[in-house]
Amino acid sequence: MSDEPTPARPPLDGDRLVAGIESGDRTALAQAITLVESRRDSDIRSAQRLLRALLPRTGASIRVGITGVPGVGKSTFIETLGLRLVEQGRRVGVLAVDPSSKISGGSILGDKSRMTRLAQDERAFIRPSPAGDSLGGVARRTRDGILLCEAAGFDVILIETVGVGQSETTVADMVDFFLVLMLPGAGDELQGIKKGIIELADMLAVNKADGDNEVRAREAVQEYSAALRYLTPRGDGWRPRAMAVSAKTGVGVDELWAAVVEHHELLAASGELDRRRESQRGRWMWHVIETELGRAFRAHPAVREQLTEVEAALADGRLTPTEAALRLIDAFRT
Amino acid sequence: MSDEPTPARPPLDGDRLVAGIESGDRTALAQAITLVESRRDSDIRSAQRLLRALLPRTGASIRVGITGVPGVGKSTFIETLGLRLVEQGRRVGVLAVDPSSKISGGSILGDKSRMTRLAQDERAFIRPSPAGDSLGGVARRTRDGILLCEAAGFDVILIETVGVGQSETTVADMVDFFLVLMLPGAGDELQGIKKGIIELADMLAVNKADGDNEVRAREAVQEYSAALRYLTPRGDGWRPRAMAVSAKTGVGVDELWAAVVEHHELLAASGELDRRRESQRGRWMWHVIETELGRAFRAHPAVREQLTEVEAALADGRLTPTEAALRLIDAFRT
Repeated sequence: MSDEPTPARPPLDGDRLVAGIESGDRTALAQAITLVESRRDSDIRSAQRLLRALLPRTGASIRVGITGVPGVGKSTFIETLGLRLVEQGRRVGVLAVDPSSKISGGSILGDKSRMTRLAQDERAFIRPSPAGDSLGGVARRTRDGILLCEAAGFDVILIETVGVGQSETTVADMVDFFLVLMLPGAGDELQGIKKGIIELADMLAVNKADGDNEVRAREAVQEYSAALRYLTPRGDGWRPRAMAVSAKTGVGVDELWAAVVEHHELLAASGELDRRRESQRGRWMWHVIETELGRAFRAHPAVREQLTEVEAALADGRLTPTEAALRLIDAFRT
Repeated sequence: MSDEPTPARPPLDGDRLVAGIESGDRTALAQAITLVESRRDSDIRSAQRLLRALLPRTGASIRVGITGVPGVGKSTFIETLGLRLVEQGRRVGVLAVDPSSKISGGSILGDKSRMTRLAQDERAFIRPSPAGDSLGGVARRTRDGILLCEAAGFDVILIETVGVGQSETTVADMVDFFLVLMLPGAGDELQGIKKGIIELADMLAVNKADGDNEVRAREAVQEYSAALRYLTPRGDGWRPRAMAVSAKTGVGVDELWAAVVEHHELLAASGELDRRRESQRGRWMWHVIETELGRAFRAHPAVREQLTEVEAALADGRLTPTEAALRLIDAFRT
């Protein structure tokens, strides 16, 4: 940690910001993330220069994605897990991907009072999802946020997401381990969990396995274990598991973390971890390109002028989809 | 059918091609599909003018996607089903989406001898996958091919695909009903079936339920039925089913088709069919736009010049993914 006092300090820039992050200073880290979150063109370029300088110090963390329906207890779980990890000597960064925050007006993790103890621990760093942006924008900034946290010495990064749009898929593609939290006793089917999410999971954890729910949670684990057997093995040598945990009592949380570490060591030893991260970087680059091209296309004056009419013609059957597309592309090219 | 003789006829153009297709002439249809398959800019425009003229006559078919691993018996199944349908008075178009044909040198359905009887029936029309193109290109042309077949009076369109890349997802998004053929006795898991495919299926049909395989096929149906119960209901009122069929003996094929018709009537009655096709058209338009923008991006001289170097820098960690993307975008814009 930095020796400098953190409150009311003027913004650092360039080399001092790099030095601040490298020394593990949480205020410098917060400032760098703010820079990464900015949508101003000049800030985007500055942020990328900063990241490039820090890149050699990135990559050494365990990156864990955590999803689950609202009410499943994600925040409590993250606080319980995070506190155990810092007590074991880990430094824990917590980020969020929540493209819905522009609608709800709040953002997940925005209410840090839900994680009071972890938020006050200087071995942890909690950053809410930036409000008011598309999934593509939030995803880009979260990915850059992971790198910044790593450069600042955080060696476990937890990324929380709520199931909005494609956010789980997006988060699963930026982490090493993807954890899906489930509710006990939600019936004999995977109700409320979106298609494909189970197949992304490295682990299903049935939370709230405490008090009256304990038996139901164990039953749910049996069912999910059966369901997981129907999935195709993924070629990385890991078989996804189901287990019961209680964020409230802490039951199962150490076992869950032991599985995360086991998974990490397995993938690191086989070289799969490096391969996975390299292909994630490649997809991420193309994703940024596609997002940016799409943004430029939709923002183009001639495209905007014609879009409503073209969409109406497509809906009425006056244009084929290919023809509608060609018409807008012609507009874009002029 | 047209009264005109079909062999050795000079190509039709414009109005005569429209009239030929409207009269159900298979040669005119084949010629129109060749036009749609062309990658020449002028042909693409002509094809779209043709499609626009024919659009009012499209949409009245049942569009069925069929996938399954190589060796599952897709061609035999399509021949058996197709022959039954033409005997019932249906006119059956068969198209294929096979982005791998550029690699294998052949294409699925290319060997029409696998479907001799159906290919010779004038109530059927079989068109192999065009060779040597990307999935995006094949998909665009297949979608346009569906419209052309419909305009020519074919009222059942079967679209075959083998599981390459994202081809199943692509096909599932151009059809009303998505059928996954499975092998019996492939173990107690969904071996060899890619992630997410089961969740796209409106029906899993275990083929080769004949002779020694019959018991194993019935057992597989039980297992798949159980697995399907773990999927989230999709909101269209249809619950995917598993059943056993034999393309060789014909067992189960009529029951399978009855389920397809039941599904079609259910979705048509609720308005879901129209909604689904309208949203398919919208996604198709944006997909064409994205494909075309991506193609233009990758073909841009400055992007091509820098791509190798940027990818190497990304792999070594000299550039962040965002920075790599911005560098290529800058090249594209100059």
